[in-house]
Amino acid sequence: MDVQDFTHDPQRRAWVTSANAPDSDFPIQNLPFGVFSADGGAPRGGVAIGDQVLDLRAALDAGLIEGEAAEAAAEPTLNRLMAMGRPASRALRHAVSALLAEGSAAAARGDAILLPMERARMHLPCSVANFTDFMVSRDHSMRLGALKDPEAPLPPAFDSLPVAYHSRASSVRPSGQGVVRPNGQWRRREGVHFGPTEALDYELEMAVWIAGENALGSPVPMSRAPERLFGFGLLNDWSARDIQRWEMPPLGPFLAKSLCTTVSPWVVTAEAMIPFMVPAARRAEGVPPALPHLDSPGNRERGGMSVALEVFLLTPAMRAAGLAPARLTATDFAFMAWTPAQMVAHHASNGCNLLPGDLLGSGTCSGPTDESRACMAEIILSGPIQLPGGETRRFLLDGDEVIFRGRAHAPGAVPIGFGECRGTILPAPDWPVD
Amino acid sequence: MDVQDFTHDPQRRAWVTSANAPDSDFPIQNLPFGVFSADGGAPRGGVAIGDQVLDLRAALDAGLIEGEAAEAAAEPTLNRLMAMGRPASRALRHAVSALLAEGSAAAARGDAILLPMERARMHLPCSVANFTDFMVSRDHSMRLGALKDPEAPLPPAFDSLPVAYHSRASSVRPSGQGVVRPNGQWRRREGVHFGPTEALDYELEMAVWIAGENALGSPVPMSRAPERLFGFGLLNDWSARDIQRWEMPPLGPFLAKSLCTTVSPWVVTAEAMIPFMVPAARRAEGVPPALPHLDSPGNRERGGMSVALEVFLLTPAMRAAGLAPARLTATDFAFMAWTPAQMVAHHASNGCNLLPGDLLGSGTCSGPTDESRACMAEIILSGPIQLPGGETRRFLLDGDEVIFRGRAHAPGAVPIGFGECRGTILPAPDWPVD
Repeated sequence: MDVQDFTHDPQRRAWVTSANAPDSDFPIQNLPFGVFSADGGAPRGGVAIGDQVLDLRAALDAGLIEGEAAEAAAEPTLNRLMAMGRPASRALRHAVSALLAEGSAAAARGDAILLPMERARMHLPCSVANFTDFMVSRDHSMRLGALKDPEAPLPPAFDSLPVAYHSRASSVRPSGQGVVRPNGQWRRREGVHFGPTEALDYELEMAVWIAGENALGSPVPMSRAPERLFGFGLLNDWSARDIQRWEMPPLGPFLAKSLCTTVSPWVVTAEAMIPFMVPAARRAEGVPPALPHLDSPGNRERGGMSVALEVFLLTPAMRAAGLAPARLTATDFAFMAWTPAQMVAHHASNGCNLLPGDLLGSGTCSGPTDESRACMAEIILSGPIQLPGGETRRFLLDGDEVIFRGRAHAPGAVPIGFGECRGTILPAPDWPVD
Repeated sequence: MDVQDFTHDPQRRAWVTSANAPDSDFPIQNLPFGVFSADGGAPRGGVAIGDQVLDLRAALDAGLIEGEAAEAAAEPTLNRLMAMGRPASRALRHAVSALLAEGSAAAARGDAILLPMERARMHLPCSVANFTDFMVSRDHSMRLGALKDPEAPLPPAFDSLPVAYHSRASSVRPSGQGVVRPNGQWRRREGVHFGPTEALDYELEMAVWIAGENALGSPVPMSRAPERLFGFGLLNDWSARDIQRWEMPPLGPFLAKSLCTTVSPWVVTAEAMIPFMVPAARRAEGVPPALPHLDSPGNRERGGMSVALEVFLLTPAMRAAGLAPARLTATDFAFMAWTPAQMVAHHASNGCNLLPGDLLGSGTCSGPTDESRACMAEIILSGPIQLPGGETRRFLLDGDEVIFRGRAHAPGAVPIGFGECRGTILPAPDWPVD
């Protein structure tokens, strides 16, 4: 893959001038795909550029772009584009970059093909085929594992494979949709209880969207795993800790997680991430190298990703007082012990077929420092969270809004962002329901 | 619901005479839906009757049946019929029963609307939206749990909720497709190993197919859970025990199960099962009643199902010697500690949205007796399995074929069957793959 691809050129500028601001999440070097609607119209595919959305259907109709990949990207879901594989989305990226570059004739048609982002309603980027959630942060696993067994906090297989479980596809929702507090069951001193969770948490994760398809029974070797990475986003794996603790043994998390999973709507493509790929994280001291089926020179050299990730909390009281959201977490995806390519190779190592539109969550992206603890369950190990205005939190209360942001930096590259992944907690339904 | 519905009348006979044989799985009292193709044609919906398939598209075209439900049932997947809910499929069952009953004018058109089952290639009944696997056999949980902790073999929550995990939807396949032995990772004395599983097992389960849809955040109370049961089938949750043991803590089974899941192709509707509903299993001694959100008078009285379930094994050597398949398991779904309605109510109790085409597995349907142990891991607790011809097995070898059968009996009712759920083990792919 050509790191010197013209679409990454830091000198390149867009005729959409807001894209050239140094703090824009969506400069011309990014060009993430997403699905939007406006003014009650049907959902359709677009590309984020500055504070605007490029309407791909409009650009096709205006004759400014053409071809099957553009047609697929303009559809109400990106599944067909994802099915076409990396070469197709790469070629489309080249065409979109040319269309949006300073000097392009398309600038004269701006009004016809752009929509202000504030008017766009964002949808899921695709129909989520299957959702698998990993747990590849050593620090997250250690901190929470130590609560159960301080002598052996890590799962036995942690250093041998990227630990994962199947999660729920139907309850994945785009940023901005409310999150209903779940009812659930757990054990209290006086007996087994059913009611609204009292320990609702966020988990800051990265989303990996899958391209292409392998037949059932046909593994994906490490050499081909990178080509299965369509793109990336932010993911909030909302978790009810009381329900989770009770239901987990021995089959893993179930209703504690399937209440809702929120994803950021813009898919930052694997192509856009090329300048931000870094060496895979160093294996912890004394840990032998990954087995050959999870190892490759390319992965060791550029399988990791550097993305600065943040979590902000805004409570109703803070909102009423005009306070800004408070930052609870600042971490980096580069802390992760396994790479996205290793997740794919492991997932398919038994022949499991990964489909276009499959979603992988990285697991909570905690790092070694206190500020990098990426869920409340970790943060409150050192006491309640102190918020501006004098409030405290152990877990989320109704009306609390959680906001994720992510941004990739690299020397010599124009930084790119992931937009936001937001959700506000709504009250639990009354019980009994009818 | 009317148990005296005319479609259950034991005197009722079909003009397809093979359906009237006392040992037929598909008498006119059954009428399961499925998706088939023939002679290279496109998949389409049908109904099993005796040794024939009623081609619903052909019946529609011949004007013998009509309406939206019949149109939906004739499609290449049953998802739309499932989305229409129980009343629609119930009305369609009435129409199909009338069409196939002795004396119907449709008999004269038999050649145009029937296809011999032996010529039909069966497909998945629907696009599997999500797949959740339960573990509701107390005996299965006790036998395997005792290997880890003889003092506390049951999961802590076993008697408080139907334990479950999200499983993999993409690798569900219809009966008859080969099952590729997975490669995978586990720990041996000399270190972590990667290679073909050496402990491939079957798990005899029942499949539950979901009708209708609840919005995310809207639970399904017990009173409405039965209406979410579209129908039932047989399910083989193929399991690689060595991979499973290593990967499970703490997030549950993953690649040990996602290699393939085989389902029987004919969906026996909840309507057809009405005569075979029985009281929910008695709670084990000393176990308090289910919490109110998992309890209802209707469920206590008729939430359970009586289905006799069997597993047969045919090895290549047995096949070469002309031996019949050997029966390894004989059990009954009535042994299960939780009912299908309770699975639905629990699954949706946190607001999780269940979709038309969702698949629930019951978990291994083991009972208390030795012959009712419903997977090899349980059977070999008392030593290797002895087969006709002198072979033995601990786990499945390449070329072994596993066959599930199920049949429901009740006093005064014509027995109905589930057809077969078959799979043959194919060798693991060579490694490294390209």
